[in-house]
Amino acid sequence: MKDEFELAIKKLKDRGVEVRDISLLVYDLQKDYNEISLEECDDAVIKVINKNESIHAILVGISLDEMAEKGMMDDGINKIITEDSSLFGLDEILALSIVNMNGSIALTNFGYVDKIKPGIIGVIDKLGKEKKGCYTFLDDIVGAIAASAASRIAHSK
Amino acid sequence: MKDEFELAIKKLKDRGVEVRDISLLVYDLQKDYNEISLEECDDAVIKVINKNESIHAILVGISLDEMAEKGMMDDGINKIITEDSSLFGLDEILALSIVNMNGSIALTNFGYVDKIKPGIIGVIDKLGKEKKGCYTFLDDIVGAIAASAASRIAHSK
Amino acid sequence: MKDEFELAIKKLKDRGVEVRDISLLVYDLQKDYNEISLEECDDAVIKVINKNESIHAILVGISLDEMAEKGMMDDGINKIITEDSSLFGLDEILALSIVNMNGSIALTNFGYVDKIKPGIIGVIDKLGKEKKGCYTFLDDIVGAIAASAASRIAHSK
Amino acid sequence: MKDEFELAIKKLKDRGVEVRDISLLVYDLQKDYNEISLEECDDAVIKVINKNESIHAILVGISLDEMAEKGMMDDGINKIITEDSSLFGLDEILALSIVNMNGSIALTNFGYVDKIKPGIIGVIDKLGKEKKGCYTFLDDIVGAIAASAASRIAHSK
Repeated sequence: MKDEFELAIKKLKDRGVEVRDISLLVYDLQKDYNEISLEECDDAVIKVINKNESIHAILVGISLDEMAEKGMMDDGINKIITEDSSLFGLDEILALSIVNMNGSIALTNFGYVDKIKPGIIGVIDKLGKEKKGCYTFLDDIVGAIAASAASRIAHSK
Repeated sequence: MKDEFELAIKKLKDRGVEVRDISLLVYDLQKDYNEISLEECDDAVIKVINKNESIHAILVGISLDEMAEKGMMDDGINKIITEDSSLFGLDEILALSIVNMNGSIALTNFGYVDKIKPGIIGVIDKLGKEKKGCYTFLDDIVGAIAASAASRIAHSK
Repeated sequence: MKDEFELAIKKLKDRGVEVRDISLLVYDLQKDYNEISLEECDDAVIKVINKNESIHAILVGISLDEMAEKGMMDDGINKIITEDSSLFGLDEILALSIVNMNGSIALTNFGYVDKIKPGIIGVIDKLGKEKKGCYTFLDDIVGAIAASAASRIAHSK
Repeated sequence: MKDEFELAIKKLKDRGVEVRDISLLVYDLQKDYNEISLEECDDAVIKVINKNESIHAILVGISLDEMAEKGMMDDGINKIITEDSSLFGLDEILALSIVNMNGSIALTNFGYVDKIKPGIIGVIDKLGKEKKGCYTFLDDIVGAIAASAASRIAHSK
């Protein structure tokens, strides 16, 4: 698993997302409820990522974005993924693979960040909307990791 | 089913929630995306409620609130439900019974309203926090209906 | 949490379910894939039960069964729960609270035991069908614990 | 949507799955509960497939299988998907996109067929195990469609 974990971290970084970017989302989600440091958030993010379910969702989700970007799938499917219409919901479903493992606080936080698009999620979303690449799956994956890490902290305090 | 539907509407009303209160949440969730009337929102709310899964969640959720309020369950359980600690997540899970039937737009909207607590959800939440009754399950049920109705409208436009 | 854990174990026992009954289900689910002992299964069952989400689902689910049995809820709702028609699905949803925390192996095992009703699940199901009490929620809770413990073992081997 | 529906049907056929193959699974799932004809099963399968959520899951799932088969993704990811280890659960999660829309009967039937692998699911599974192609996502998608169609029939009878 160690190799796959490092591959997941590397792929996130290649697509513009550092662990710290996600920790900042976690901090904002938890600051009204718990006294926490950014380092604790980093730690929770790492623990969420370092699970089979998360690693697989990260690797497969980013692959889908990359392949749609390069036009490597059938025309119809490339179009569906790159357009990311509001009726395309598979990106949220794939992210549930991460969220479900972390209880209902993760679930409601996920819906919230998906709607509000704070910090790095807004950055990624804008890149997608400006057609600077395909980020259909990535924003939901990042939201799911942040929401799950916030849930871990809430349960541990 | 007709009797059960009317019982569900009646129980919501008995606990202080009218269809229109939910429609106002739906309207706010959809107004930035679609040209809609409040009447269309009423219609979508009715359609969401009029399903087996919704009726059962409404009736069972409200029963749990009422029985906890009256102290009819084992002490330990009454306490867990009336306190509605942030680590109690069964209310959200029960509401998923409604949300899941309505796709991923419903899911993210549900997380959002659960966090923001707009309109009637905030009213119910406050009643619970001020110990004027037990509303642990009701606020999530109302949020789930609103989120699902908004998803129905998004898919139909 | 320790008190709530012991309350959950006690309530299961009061309704006729011992940890070992669940361990036997886990053993059968895993014996074709892994070399395991019944004691390891006991251990996995205890670990699954000893989580907020599981304890709450056990306590609330058994309360619903007990209150329906005693006719303490509104007529319409008592009837829906005691009849446990094949269209009533809230029992499965409540059990998802346990299953979701334990990944997709838990999910498919849950569907499987819910359909096959092996061991103690069949015993409980029969009691309900013969109107010797209301066990609508309990069989799904037991299935969810068994499926989740099997998933834990699969992931740890 | 009409074009996407036809593309989904075509892709299923290209990978060896006809509507009728799925109808046969539905028939077996429902025959003990309801008097049904194979034609009714065909009809329910078509209705399940003809939804945004189902079409997207079919198209994206089959694309992932095809790209893993051709080795078009990063080595690490190709390997994870083609091996389909018992700890890889993203295939079941993607299929939930179809199952969730169809209630809890769909959920338990999905777990059951995923475990038993009847009819065409067993055929696909064997092709994958014998390395005659990558069918990691397809078997779960087919199981999800069958389970959902069975749930539709159960609710309509």
